[in-house]
Amino acid sequence: MASQPRVGIVVGSESDLPVMQRTGDVLDTYGVGWEIGVMSAHRAGDLVRAYGAAAKDRGLRVLVAGAGAAAHLPGVLASLTTLPVIGVPLAATPLAGFDSLLSIVQMPPGIPVATVAVGEMGARNAGHLAAEIIALEDTAVAEAVVKERARMRDSAKPPEGFV
Amino acid sequence: MASQPRVGIVVGSESDLPVMQRTGDVLDTYGVGWEIGVMSAHRAGDLVRAYGAAAKDRGLRVLVAGAGAAAHLPGVLASLTTLPVIGVPLAATPLAGFDSLLSIVQMPPGIPVATVAVGEMGARNAGHLAAEIIALEDTAVAEAVVKERARMRDSAKPPEGFV
Amino acid sequence: MASQPRVGIVVGSESDLPVMQRTGDVLDTYGVGWEIGVMSAHRAGDLVRAYGAAAKDRGLRVLVAGAGAAAHLPGVLASLTTLPVIGVPLAATPLAGFDSLLSIVQMPPGIPVATVAVGEMGARNAGHLAAEIIALEDTAVAEAVVKERARMRDSAKPPEGFV
Amino acid sequence: MASQPRVGIVVGSESDLPVMQRTGDVLDTYGVGWEIGVMSAHRAGDLVRAYGAAAKDRGLRVLVAGAGAAAHLPGVLASLTTLPVIGVPLAATPLAGFDSLLSIVQMPPGIPVATVAVGEMGARNAGHLAAEIIALEDTAVAEAVVKERARMRDSAKPPEGFV
Amino acid sequence: MASQPRVGIVVGSESDLPVMQRTGDVLDTYGVGWEIGVMSAHRAGDLVRAYGAAAKDRGLRVLVAGAGAAAHLPGVLASLTTLPVIGVPLAATPLAGFDSLLSIVQMPPGIPVATVAVGEMGARNAGHLAAEIIALEDTAVAEAVVKERARMRDSAKPPEGFV
Amino acid sequence: MASQPRVGIVVGSESDLPVMQRTGDVLDTYGVGWEIGVMSAHRAGDLVRAYGAAAKDRGLRVLVAGAGAAAHLPGVLASLTTLPVIGVPLAATPLAGFDSLLSIVQMPPGIPVATVAVGEMGARNAGHLAAEIIALEDTAVAEAVVKERARMRDSAKPPEGFV
Amino acid sequence: MASQPRVGIVVGSESDLPVMQRTGDVLDTYGVGWEIGVMSAHRAGDLVRAYGAAAKDRGLRVLVAGAGAAAHLPGVLASLTTLPVIGVPLAATPLAGFDSLLSIVQMPPGIPVATVAVGEMGARNAGHLAAEIIALEDTAVAEAVVKERARMRDSAKPPEGFV
Amino acid sequence: MASQPRVGIVVGSESDLPVMQRTGDVLDTYGVGWEIGVMSAHRAGDLVRAYGAAAKDRGLRVLVAGAGAAAHLPGVLASLTTLPVIGVPLAATPLAGFDSLLSIVQMPPGIPVATVAVGEMGARNAGHLAAEIIALEDTAVAEAVVKERARMRDSAKPPEGFV
Repeated sequence: MASQPRVGIVVGSESDLPVMQRTGDVLDTYGVGWEIGVMSAHRAGDLVRAYGAAAKDRGLRVLVAGAGAAAHLPGVLASLTTLPVIGVPLAATPLAGFDSLLSIVQMPPGIPVATVAVGEMGARNAGHLAAEIIALEDTAVAEAVVKERARMRDSAKPPEGFV
Repeated sequence: MASQPRVGIVVGSESDLPVMQRTGDVLDTYGVGWEIGVMSAHRAGDLVRAYGAAAKDRGLRVLVAGAGAAAHLPGVLASLTTLPVIGVPLAATPLAGFDSLLSIVQMPPGIPVATVAVGEMGARNAGHLAAEIIALEDTAVAEAVVKERARMRDSAKPPEGFV
Repeated sequence: MASQPRVGIVVGSESDLPVMQRTGDVLDTYGVGWEIGVMSAHRAGDLVRAYGAAAKDRGLRVLVAGAGAAAHLPGVLASLTTLPVIGVPLAATPLAGFDSLLSIVQMPPGIPVATVAVGEMGARNAGHLAAEIIALEDTAVAEAVVKERARMRDSAKPPEGFV
Repeated sequence: MASQPRVGIVVGSESDLPVMQRTGDVLDTYGVGWEIGVMSAHRAGDLVRAYGAAAKDRGLRVLVAGAGAAAHLPGVLASLTTLPVIGVPLAATPLAGFDSLLSIVQMPPGIPVATVAVGEMGARNAGHLAAEIIALEDTAVAEAVVKERARMRDSAKPPEGFV
Repeated sequence: MASQPRVGIVVGSESDLPVMQRTGDVLDTYGVGWEIGVMSAHRAGDLVRAYGAAAKDRGLRVLVAGAGAAAHLPGVLASLTTLPVIGVPLAATPLAGFDSLLSIVQMPPGIPVATVAVGEMGARNAGHLAAEIIALEDTAVAEAVVKERARMRDSAKPPEGFV
Repeated sequence: MASQPRVGIVVGSESDLPVMQRTGDVLDTYGVGWEIGVMSAHRAGDLVRAYGAAAKDRGLRVLVAGAGAAAHLPGVLASLTTLPVIGVPLAATPLAGFDSLLSIVQMPPGIPVATVAVGEMGARNAGHLAAEIIALEDTAVAEAVVKERARMRDSAKPPEGFV
Repeated sequence: MASQPRVGIVVGSESDLPVMQRTGDVLDTYGVGWEIGVMSAHRAGDLVRAYGAAAKDRGLRVLVAGAGAAAHLPGVLASLTTLPVIGVPLAATPLAGFDSLLSIVQMPPGIPVATVAVGEMGARNAGHLAAEIIALEDTAVAEAVVKERARMRDSAKPPEGFV
Repeated sequence: MASQPRVGIVVGSESDLPVMQRTGDVLDTYGVGWEIGVMSAHRAGDLVRAYGAAAKDRGLRVLVAGAGAAAHLPGVLASLTTLPVIGVPLAATPLAGFDSLLSIVQMPPGIPVATVAVGEMGARNAGHLAAEIIALEDTAVAEAVVKERARMRDSAKPPEGFV
């Protein structure tokens, strides 16, 4: 977290911190600075508004919001800034993430949220997606993204007889 | 809509007005004044905040919010007032209302939304529920609710041989 | 539970008691008296009818019913009283609460149930919602609700660099 | 409907009559008398209770209840009689019958409802199932059921080359 | 299992035996004899056909079939006999019983299956439902069913202040 | 349909014929002979058994079964032959094909059904899949499959500026 | 479409063109050039690979892919470029878009797709999201996005009594 | 794995290996050689393309692909070869396999995937299905399949009183 944060990660509840920390871990591999905070869209609306309104001027380029249940945080943030907002649906209720997924992805026209997969898988992909966006303006990050893609390829294990 | 509004009905999109008008129709049968407006939680957040913050002082007792898709309006309103907020999920997307239902009913702890059924059925029940709440402090409405219940019974048609 | 109960909490099965006790815990923080009982809509219909019919005269203002599976208790209670009834869907079967949620929220016109989230989250929100309704007629509760909202805000943790 | 009704069909709402009439049509083919009535479990609870309590003594052997949305009628009837109750989930809301199906089939222990398919398909099968139950004590119906099964076989059309 | 079996319980897989044993436990409380066997509709089709075809002549009055996944056993049995067949959907796959429920309840016209709830709850209710059907022709069972209903009522615990 | 049928297509109900005719249309483009018949797994079990048992000796190489609702036909056929069976879930009920899809694809171990998409899309793909299987032993069909793949490519329309 | 395309829109099937044209309409309001093409991930894989590989060098900044059913196009494109890819699930089958939504949003770690809502609503939001991303590097677009947000606010209609 | 592989099994992620090993176990019982490898459709697209393109010439007759989440691997492979491809949806996310099932089975026209059940049950059935296809051209495998069917029948346990 040393460098100036370019990605602001927020979660709706303190219990969501560990899984959303994965977004930060991925950003670290790309050398993209980030910050993380807890602010419920409903219980701390003023803070969310202040954070969303200030985001651009503070130098943030992308926001990432993770939330479970009726997950309004990503959409509310998206309505407060014109920065791209990535939403991570978390599986925090017996309904297994169907609730947070639909609450985030089905945003009505005009205020999109870039939604990724439910849970930790999505938390990590939020980091990859944020890096891809930042890579558009930062050559070092662009190179890191290309390098990471190559590294992924190496995890493949073809069948023994196939070379 | 003659009398002083005690129920504030809001919808997220102009296309939702006809179905949510049903809430007002039901309130009329109870003699409960109401008002209705269009304000998206995301596209008109400032208006929503102003409306939610002023609701109690303007004499409103219950808010009703109808919305489709990722339906944040009821929850956002609920976070802005301590008045009871009733949420009506509308079936406005190919996902048939599963999206709006889960976006409204699965509100996280502290900020409840009193959710009713999807679509017109729910819009009408929002009116009945608002009347039940207002009936706690208004004897005339309480009597109207009791009378309406009796009227409902009369729509039954027992089998011919059963008396 | 010292003071005169204003909220009657009922559950369909003894195994639902622990989670629905959370509704009472929340009501305690608002100084709202409550009582709790076990009565299945199907196995103890006479008791449910007696309880529903007597609720208003016994001084109750709001009923809360928690049930799992084909959760008819909230709707049946709602048909027996004109008091507002809050329904809490419990996740008691392999279907994860989708069954109880739809059995409670999809009430047909005329007899609404104010539905909250599935499981413990909903049990707690039932307490908050009941308090909001009672706050309409009780200034002390109204103040407690406002105070509780402020307390919630304090659980937010903005990112370190944001003040 | 000439003969003494042995099957009592009830629907929750007048709009459900046409589809549930199919149950009667099927019973006619078996020579089993039936009656039909409209009584909402919630809006006409007293009538439902009277009907359920009197069913056995009036000579009914099986009850069939069709309902949509949060379909409580079959389960409520089942709690009022020890006669077998068949439930038909109707697709009356945007949720396409998932709501009525889960509200009927997921009955908690002790009070079963014999659930059949959603909509007209289920309405017809309720007639077949009721006839199978009555066939246990009525040889004429038993023979009619066997004959009907043979008739069904004749609707098959094997591929031309297969004999 | 002493008395002559009147209910034949079959399961699709040996792993389903423990939960379907609950059907037998309930039948024991009503004094209704039963038998239980394992026969997959797909892997042991000949045995299923023989069992279904012989069921009536062997004195069985009701069949109960429990199965998970694509649960065809109840429907296949129903096509082989005119006895009432009760289907119990079991939660045997990651899809949590939605698969077995829909595979059993959605039977096409002509061959109904009386479907009960998913899992152990349904296994027990299959016993109650079978007893209700047999009670139509056996006074002792009819009395046992009435008695059992009374016993269920005693499990209710009204709130302390309500008598 | 001139040549000797190598694919046997069966549907559970006459109303399913038009959509399943699409499977035949696709097979025609590959020069693979086929036959089609109507036989419900439940209403015409004997015919299904005879057809399944004779399939291999009659020269069929692949069976295709289309069915809606609790769609048992593909699985039942698969249990009667060791030929590969392709199942096509049809959307024939208010549940939109979720019922037939789960009834077909979730086959328990030992008796697989090769399931394709819901509705006409799946009916056509059943033809493509059957051709792929027959292509393993018939060079002319193999060449036709390769040619058809090339033809598909030509339906692409790259953006105007991209060559 | 006059200016140099910065957004490449692709659809899996020609029938998807009209709805995905909405993405282009929205981009027009922001002055962002775009191009559109038809290329199935499965039927025209070579073209997809060529298009994805060339996208960055051709000056595209964001890709948008709309597809129905098992919608692989967005994910496959995302694996071929490090540009951000936005996925639009289309409702093209009886399963109402649940299939395309889950096929797009649940991308495994490393290759994210920024998923928006099902159908036309999502097609339009894909345009808004692409503009937000391009706005990070283009001040004119950034201003257009801010202006568009202001315009959205004007569609609100507060209740008559509220000013 | 001694004999020349005729079935190529691939998984999207190393964590899917243990469950997909079940496919190989089943193939062993039929004496059908197989190979297994790890290659993500997205992270190792080049390897997948090379493997799919070479499959037929390397002597493979059937491909089996198991994947979770947005499971594109089976469909992508199917687009690269005209060999039959069997898809196994794995339950690798909070959405319990609904995501992988729909991502695999809903393949659009022209490129079918023979889909089997979610999870280990499907992994095993993929082996049975592959053997059925290979049995069309290999008498020894055909006999093994017939023998295995007979063995399955022996796992049935008829009720004690039924012989």
